[in-house]
Amino acid sequence: MTIFITGVAGFIGSNLARRMLERGSRVAGFDNLSLGSNANLRPILGHTAFAFAVVDLADLAAYRSALQTLHARSPIREVWHLAASSDIPAGVADPRVDLRDTFMTTFNTLVLMKELGVRTIVFASSSAIYGDLGDRELREDAGPLFPISNYGAMKLASEAAISAALESHLERAYLYRFPNVVGVPATHGVILDFVRKLKATPASLEVLGDGSQQKGYLHAEELIDAMLFARDRAGDRLNCFNIGAEDDGVNVRFIAETVVKRVSPQARISYGQGNKGWVGDVPRFRYSVAKLAALGWRPSLGSEATVRKAVDQIAQQEAGG
Amino acid sequence: MTIFITGVAGFIGSNLARRMLERGSRVAGFDNLSLGSNANLRPILGHTAFAFAVVDLADLAAYRSALQTLHARSPIREVWHLAASSDIPAGVADPRVDLRDTFMTTFNTLVLMKELGVRTIVFASSSAIYGDLGDRELREDAGPLFPISNYGAMKLASEAAISAALESHLERAYLYRFPNVVGVPATHGVILDFVRKLKATPASLEVLGDGSQQKGYLHAEELIDAMLFARDRAGDRLNCFNIGAEDDGVNVRFIAETVVKRVSPQARISYGQGNKGWVGDVPRFRYSVAKLAALGWRPSLGSEATVRKAVDQIAQQEAGG
Repeated sequence: MTIFITGVAGFIGSNLARRMLERGSRVAGFDNLSLGSNANLRPILGHTAFAFAVVDLADLAAYRSALQTLHARSPIREVWHLAASSDIPAGVADPRVDLRDTFMTTFNTLVLMKELGVRTIVFASSSAIYGDLGDRELREDAGPLFPISNYGAMKLASEAAISAALESHLERAYLYRFPNVVGVPATHGVILDFVRKLKATPASLEVLGDGSQQKGYLHAEELIDAMLFARDRAGDRLNCFNIGAEDDGVNVRFIAETVVKRVSPQARISYGQGNKGWVGDVPRFRYSVAKLAALGWRPSLGSEATVRKAVDQIAQQEAGG
Repeated sequence: MTIFITGVAGFIGSNLARRMLERGSRVAGFDNLSLGSNANLRPILGHTAFAFAVVDLADLAAYRSALQTLHARSPIREVWHLAASSDIPAGVADPRVDLRDTFMTTFNTLVLMKELGVRTIVFASSSAIYGDLGDRELREDAGPLFPISNYGAMKLASEAAISAALESHLERAYLYRFPNVVGVPATHGVILDFVRKLKATPASLEVLGDGSQQKGYLHAEELIDAMLFARDRAGDRLNCFNIGAEDDGVNVRFIAETVVKRVSPQARISYGQGNKGWVGDVPRFRYSVAKLAALGWRPSLGSEATVRKAVDQIAQQEAGG
């Protein structure tokens, strides 16, 4: 029996596949390589229990054909659906990006799970579904849900489609609402942006916004710990968990300073105006991870240590080291 | 300046268009006539301030071309987006029905509003977005939102896409979460089902479920009153309102008895098992309409009187009278 991962060549998918292989699972994955890459899979591509194919999950016919072949060879036990466009600003500029890569990949995955009789899905949702609820604590049962980015909207749409599918053909679903996740292989995000900017212009770092924007950060390794932990222990029909840091997070200023110190200590940092980096980015954030803690999982690193570790890893990655 | 209505040939769309014309507005509407019909538009088709075209809103190219033509002739001031598949069981059987007719019609409407610079949308959402929250009171800020039908899922997805669009190109949105609406021209729903069953077999009426399922009902005329009232008075960027009855509703038994009395008084009613009529149908329902009442609007008829009025109208409709 195989665990099937969509978006397997992405930042989180590739780490997840490696971890599952280490646990002794048979793993297969598809990716369209729009944001993921073969390089991310290098550590596991030769593994005998791992199968990979380049498939565009938004193309139902291609997806069906590839998944049928895979399922015939090694029956799929459950689907971990991570494929999505993780480029939030791209989705703000053109909603069709998230429609296609974030929502239709989910919709098609559900269509094919129904056809193949695969009944468990684990879904990488997002804290972006909450939109901007001001200073309210964001528990899993918070409402109303008015996302402010198309990325968040299409993640919420995906949750809704999965929830409805539980009434017909699915037996169990895990909706994990991801926080800001950092680590390697980094494909996007503020740390990578800063590292690359400094490599291009080592004397200065220009930051969008005033640097006061504060968020909690979780390392990808810990995110995967949490996902596997909850998958093993939570047995409701629909299991929805926020996953994230327990502290109030760090601000962009801290991240900028940490990157500068590691990559280009002489650089001058200049800040913009306001506390929104781009349209669709939520400034404040009180993310409750109490439900997951009650189940027994807590992160071992705080946001500061997480960012420091990731900055170090991403600086190494970008140095080609 | 024109008010543009999608799904204008449907049950609610055709009533809304007529009312807006009575208020002196210029009205244009599209419909794919999958559930709507030309017959519904008969009372207004000759009106000089009304324009109608058969357009499939899920086909972006066709929709764009038709809307550009309309907008060039008479600029669109705001969009009332009512087009959707209202056939919940069809969407449970095949999720592609609601994907196409309930969600993609919304997505395409937003794409074209951006292209044409139309900045106000009024959207016919649904109480189905709440899923089954048990005995909890369903206020507009209730969570979590886990719909149990694809219809509800694609209405929630539509709300989410509209919410995200407010961060880029929309100025104002009205999300009206519709209750069970009855009236004429009836195109679907339990009353029409019962009337038609009795016309086919006048001696007996077979009811799905045990008849205990209870819901509030609102008449279409009152729904339209409420929509126009809130559109005129609520001025937030995002205005979300439950619209519905204020009472606890009536059960299916009451509806069956009312229909039998009106259509075929000799008929024997037989009931099934359980209180779910079909997959995706929510049995209990505590729908809060306090927010709309605070704005100043309340229904004038209770659920019982609403059902009696609708049964009478639908019986007449089906008698061809």
